[in-house]
Formats: sequence, C-alpha cells, structure tokens
Amino acid sequence: MFSSETTIRVRYAETDQMGYVYYGNYATYYEVGRVEAMRSIGFSYGKMEENGIMMPVLENHSRFLLPGKYDELLTIRTEVKDMPGVKIRFHYYIYNETLELINEGETLLTFLRTDTHRPCRPPADLLELLRPYFTT
Amino acid sequence: MFSSETTIRVRYAETDQMGYVYYGNYATYYEVGRVEAMRSIGFSYGKMEENGIMMPVLENHSRFLLPGKYDELLTIRTEVKDMPGVKIRFHYYIYNETLELINEGETLLTFLRTDTHRPCRPPADLLELLRPYFTT
Amino acid sequence: MFSSETTIRVRYAETDQMGYVYYGNYATYYEVGRVEAMRSIGFSYGKMEENGIMMPVLENHSRFLLPGKYDELLTIRTEVKDMPGVKIRFHYYIYNETLELINEGETLLTFLRTDTHRPCRPPADLLELLRPYFTT
Amino acid sequence: MFSSETTIRVRYAETDQMGYVYYGNYATYYEVGRVEAMRSIGFSYGKMEENGIMMPVLENHSRFLLPGKYDELLTIRTEVKDMPGVKIRFHYYIYNETLELINEGETLLTFLRTDTHRPCRPPADLLELLRPYFTT
Repeated sequence: MFSSETTIRVRYAETDQMGYVYYGNYATYYEVGRVEAMRSIGFSYGKMEENGIMMPVLENHSRFLLPGKYDELLTIRTEVKDMPGVKIRFHYYIYNETLELINEGETLLTFLRTDTHRPCRPPADLLELLRPYFTT
Repeated sequence: MFSSETTIRVRYAETDQMGYVYYGNYATYYEVGRVEAMRSIGFSYGKMEENGIMMPVLENHSRFLLPGKYDELLTIRTEVKDMPGVKIRFHYYIYNETLELINEGETLLTFLRTDTHRPCRPPADLLELLRPYFTT
Repeated sequence: MFSSETTIRVRYAETDQMGYVYYGNYATYYEVGRVEAMRSIGFSYGKMEENGIMMPVLENHSRFLLPGKYDELLTIRTEVKDMPGVKIRFHYYIYNETLELINEGETLLTFLRTDTHRPCRPPADLLELLRPYFTT
Repeated sequence: MFSSETTIRVRYAETDQMGYVYYGNYATYYEVGRVEAMRSIGFSYGKMEENGIMMPVLENHSRFLLPGKYDELLTIRTEVKDMPGVKIRFHYYIYNETLELINEGETLLTFLRTDTHRPCRPPADLLELLRPYFTT
C-alpha cells in the first residue's frame, strides 16, 4: 500500500454560512491530496498532462464526519491500496488539528490520452515509482 | 416518490483546463437541484435556516459518466425516494442538451437545530408538502 | 450604450462564514453578466471561443456596497459604454431583491487568437450586433 | 511599510478551460496573502473574528499581467503601506516560478463589530504589531 500525507490550511473562501467548510470543497482537498501524494514519490501530475495523458474522475464518494473550520490546518492522508490498471483508486482521510477524523472519501480516476480521449495504461514511470509499495 | 427538474448554465469559472466541468462543482449543482426541488413545492431552505434548522451533508456520492462542458444548459432531476426521517436522501440525474445522462449522484443530509447542533425532526411543513408524493 | 440585465440566485456554496457572498465570487457574477449580455443580442461567447478567439481579463475592479445574501435573486445590469477595439470594457451593477445597489464593478478584457495568443480585432459579428447601440 | 511573502500552489480546481487560473480566484489568493501576512507577525484573523471583529472587503482591484498556470508555485508579496485606521489597504504582487510579476492588486477592508455590524477601530494588538514597521 502507498500512503502519503500533506497539509492544507482552510481558506475563508472555502467556508459557507454554516461556518463550516462547504461540502463541495472536499473534492478540491482530495485533488491536493492525490497530487501531493504523487509528487512525494517524484511523479508530477502536471508533467504527465503535458505529455498527453490526463486523469478524469469517474467516481467520488465522501463521508462528512465532523465539520471543517476556517483556518484549521488539516492533514490529508492519501492512500493507494492497489496497483493501478487503467483505473486508479485513491482513499482520503482528513484530520483536524486535534487529530479527529473529519472526512473520509475515495475517488476512482482513469487514464486517458489527451489527443484521442481513449483509455490508456498508466505512465510507465508512475507504475515504477508505485511498485515498491506493493511488492510482498 | 418526489421528483423535480431545474436547469443550470455551466459557467466558465466551473470549467478546468481539461475543458470539462471540474468534478468538485457537481456538489454545487446538487445543492441547486435540491434547493430548487424544495422551492418547487413551496419550501424555502433559506427560511428554514432562519427558523433555526440547518441541513449539513453527511454523505455525497457521484458518478461522472460524460464531461460537462462550458455554456451547456444542464438539466438536473432531483428525486426523493423515501419520506425523510432525521435524515433525507436526494438523488440527482444530470443531463446535457442532447439528453445524455452525464452525472448521477446522491447526498444524505440531516436536520440539525442551529442553536444546539443536535439532530431534530424535519420541519412539519416540509413533511406535509412531501407527504402527497408518498401516499399509496 | 449597450445595456442588458440578467438574474442570478445566490448559492450556498457562494456564501462564507460571515453569512455574505464571498467577495471573490462577484467575478463569477460579472462573468455571467457579460456572457448573458452578449447572448441577449445573439452573440455566443462559447461559439467565439470554438472559432479561435478568446477573451482573457486584463483588469477587474469591484466596490462592495452591501452584502449579498444566501438565496437572494440578484439582478446584474451589464453595460458597454464604448464600442470595443482590441479591448472591451464591461460595467456591472448588482441589485438585491429590494433594489438596493450592492455591488458595482468593471472588467477590461482583450481579444486574443487562441492559436497564437496574439491580440486581434473583435469578431465582425459582435461589432455588427453592438453597433446599433452606439450610433448617434 | 509592512511586507510579507507566502507561497501558494495552483490547484486544478482553480484553472479554467483557457488553461489559466480563473480570474476570480486571485481574490482568494489575496485572502491567503493577507491572512498569512498577519500571521507572520503573530496576528490571527480567525482569533480576531472569534473575538467579535470581522473585516469585510470594501474594494478589490486587480491587474492580470500574465496567466497563472496549473501547479505553479506562486509567490504572493503582501504589503501594507500605511498604518490602518477604520480601514486597511493591502497591496499584492504575485510572481510565478520564473519571478515574472503575473498579477498585482489591492483590497480595501474595514473593521466591523460582529454583533452590531458597525465600524470600529482595529484591534489594539494588531496596531501594536504593525507599528514597528511604520516608525520613522
């Protein structure tokens, strides 16, 4: 299993009049989580896209356990539990400053060639960088 | 079952550099879907909140079937399939201008008293307005 | 002078914990204002972009006079006071339901060819559609 | 003069189909700039709001000089050029990774008591923390 952590500071723009992080903004937090997880092993989502492969999201699932609050420094733990094929699933666990789990979610993404919009295999270097986490 | 439709025009702000609606923005579309669905039977979410009851989201699930595109006039069909208790589940089906289903999702929300943040029963008038759709 | 009005319903996602519309969201309201203003005379921003011309924003100025509130149906009046050259300036006046002016702003945009990213003249059909509003 | 720098990584959510940072998102970058600037001298915007003072924005001005791009690590320099009275003006200068100035802006904010929504003086501790930067 591959696991990585990053932090994010809640912006005023992300709160709503309930005084909580608006529920739609967790999708952006997940994006930051998975992009930073990939960066932590030396893989750049941006470079991959420049090289002609993009990763649209197929599914998103979220459970909102406790409210996120303005200015909190949240910790996002991102996990990949299985080696990706034409799809890759990320799991997210978001903790507040007192280490309470406030949100958990998962997204399923696929790899598409930017020119043809057809599914493709993950980039070879991504697979190579991930493989050490899945050998038994 | 209660079902209602509303339309939404995709804004430039809602697209991303893939040229699609960013996946996190569907949560906002769902919000518009359920608020307009309630308004269509004469119930105002805003008034309810002024009267001391709010509805935070507990779960969100989305499947992204086809990309949403800039300036498309999307149709959101919102359904409530069961009479709400302390929780209410909304289902969403989003169609593009050629009537393709591009997204489906559901959210589970709960009713909370704004002062105590404790769960409560749905407002009596909401139940009354919904009941005709569920009598057999 | 060309002037056009459209309405917009404030979404929960657009509020912040002050209970107001977050100040950054007025830029999106301006976008809706100018796109709908152009649509009202038969010009589609989306089609223009498909035809290879885009309109990035060069300047944005906003004055926040009164708070925008959740669920309000705002009226945006968009004005073009001078025939566009390589740049076009839009003025915006946003009113709440009691007809108070809550926000005014202006944006300066330019016309760029999508392929070369070089400035260009406005599309001929846009000029033709605007001209009747500026003849004396 | 008080000046402070912070960095921000451009998120996919913040891009639009032009492949640029959507112009409305710079307001959020300004928010991060001023909040981190205040934090850098030991002042917490969040704590101030809990203590009953909020800072709504009265004016926002932006000039977009070069596009911001996905995944760039932007540097925001935030400046306060004059000691605040009932209003405070922040200036922002945003640089990309090659140190090009891509955006400059300013916002005028005011201090309001949260309970009465009436203007008030800035918190004494904020003034004290800022004063050393303005003595001659």
